Amino acid sequence: MESIKKSDFVQSLEKGLNVIASFDPENQSMTLTEVAKKVDLTRANARRILLTLQYLGYVQCEDGKKFSLSPKILTLGYSYLSGLPYHEIAKPFLRQLADQVNESCSMSVLDQNDIVYVARVQTNRIMTLALGIGTRLPVYATSMGRVLLSRMEDEDLREYLHNLKIEKLTENTITDPDKLFERIKLVRNRGWAIADQELEIGVRSIACPIKDKSGKTIAALNISGHASRVSKDEMQEKFLPPLKSTVVQIENAIHKL
Amino acid sequence: MESIKKSDFVQSLEKGLNVIASFDPENQSMTLTEVAKKVDLTRANARRILLTLQYLGYVQCEDGKKFSLSPKILTLGYSYLSGLPYHEIAKPFLRQLADQVNESCSMSVLDQNDIVYVARVQTNRIMTLALGIGTRLPVYATSMGRVLLSRMEDEDLREYLHNLKIEKLTENTITDPDKLFERIKLVRNRGWAIADQELEIGVRSIACPIKDKSGKTIAALNISGHASRVSKDEMQEKFLPPLKSTVVQIENAIHKL
Repeated sequence: MESIKKSDFVQSLEKGLNVIASFDPENQSMTLTEVAKKVDLTRANARRILLTLQYLGYVQCEDGKKFSLSPKILTLGYSYLSGLPYHEIAKPFLRQLADQVNESCSMSVLDQNDIVYVARVQTNRIMTLALGIGTRLPVYATSMGRVLLSRMEDEDLREYLHNLKIEKLTENTITDPDKLFERIKLVRNRGWAIADQELEIGVRSIACPIKDKSGKTIAALNISGHASRVSKDEMQEKFLPPLKSTVVQIENAIHKL
Repeated sequence: MESIKKSDFVQSLEKGLNVIASFDPENQSMTLTEVAKKVDLTRANARRILLTLQYLGYVQCEDGKKFSLSPKILTLGYSYLSGLPYHEIAKPFLRQLADQVNESCSMSVLDQNDIVYVARVQTNRIMTLALGIGTRLPVYATSMGRVLLSRMEDEDLREYLHNLKIEKLTENTITDPDKLFERIKLVRNRGWAIADQELEIGVRSIACPIKDKSGKTIAALNISGHASRVSKDEMQEKFLPPLKSTVVQIENAIHKL
């Protein structure tokens, strides 16, 4: 992100957004003290922000102690999704694909050094990944991440990877920027990516780009599964054809827009 | 909402949230001037807020002029949805129901004087309502709204309806609070509600409550369709049985939590 002059920075807005973001699936309801601690604010600051959010209807307080988000919060994020022209179009195709391969399918876009899920269809299996819309995962360790990075020019990509903070998340994670560069070039050439337990042991995924009319990659589509259910070779043999065919259907629908 | 002391109110947080909410499907990308006008801020104020949001990664600026929301915005609203225990559970049942009746199905909760969509499954028809998650509709003119109001005690309900600002949205909209009160009592007694073109001419819907283990209504489920495709009698004959049966399935799944 660009730098910003200190005089232009609205600090209380940052604090307020941090308070909203502090409510997550593990912390759906928190006391003032808990919020202050989680966001690293003084109690007085946290109190003013929670009262303001409550007054504006974004937060509710059930018994005078526990704060939680209220449905109005949906007005903030959802305009982003409904603004993605391909989002509504792609969803039924994702459902079809998930039913066909009996594994979860997702769509994501790039945001800084993460991929962000914008759609996800889960199968009814017990063992699925607990990932929802808005979930962020590191770009370098995911098949969708590599697909999304493959649209960069060689020089930019090399520089990007050399500046990227790469953690060895599993024994399989590729941490060498030059090796990653070669992998992503391969992805660009063949049009798909596999990540084999690089994010988490037990998780394999295969991804393809979704391109607009001009050939620009606008999102990535993947199928992910548990490594015990599907080998790396099977991913390519069984999942790549329906994945490719779904991409064509989505692109056809998007290009008609 | 409760009142708040002026000294406790964080005004720049309100302004910032208004700026975020100003990006909607019709205004996905706006200049500084457009944002300032839409949110009724000075250019200087709007500029500081947009720069702060851009610095924090919630907003992006593509050509130095047009601002739009970035995927990070999803971190704000989605924790609300993933916090609803019944949300993920209900979704596959909604899909099943929509496939069965070949009409769109939705789930909503009450927020002040609106219902707010928390899940929606559309059919592939051309003629569907353009409603997404987070969409707000007036409680009094919708079948789900009446279902959600029916959990109130008589006295509270009567007072609520008499204080409610009711607009005659179509020739069918019931605007008399006492008549609405009687309708909602009927809904409570028989366990379902119909709204017949009260929100918009051409739209009919039928709704049932989803209740938790203690019998408290936590959400409403509906089927909506175009009036030209389905008569009011058909809604009750054809749609009520599968709707009721879906509610039972969802409730069984929720009560096991």
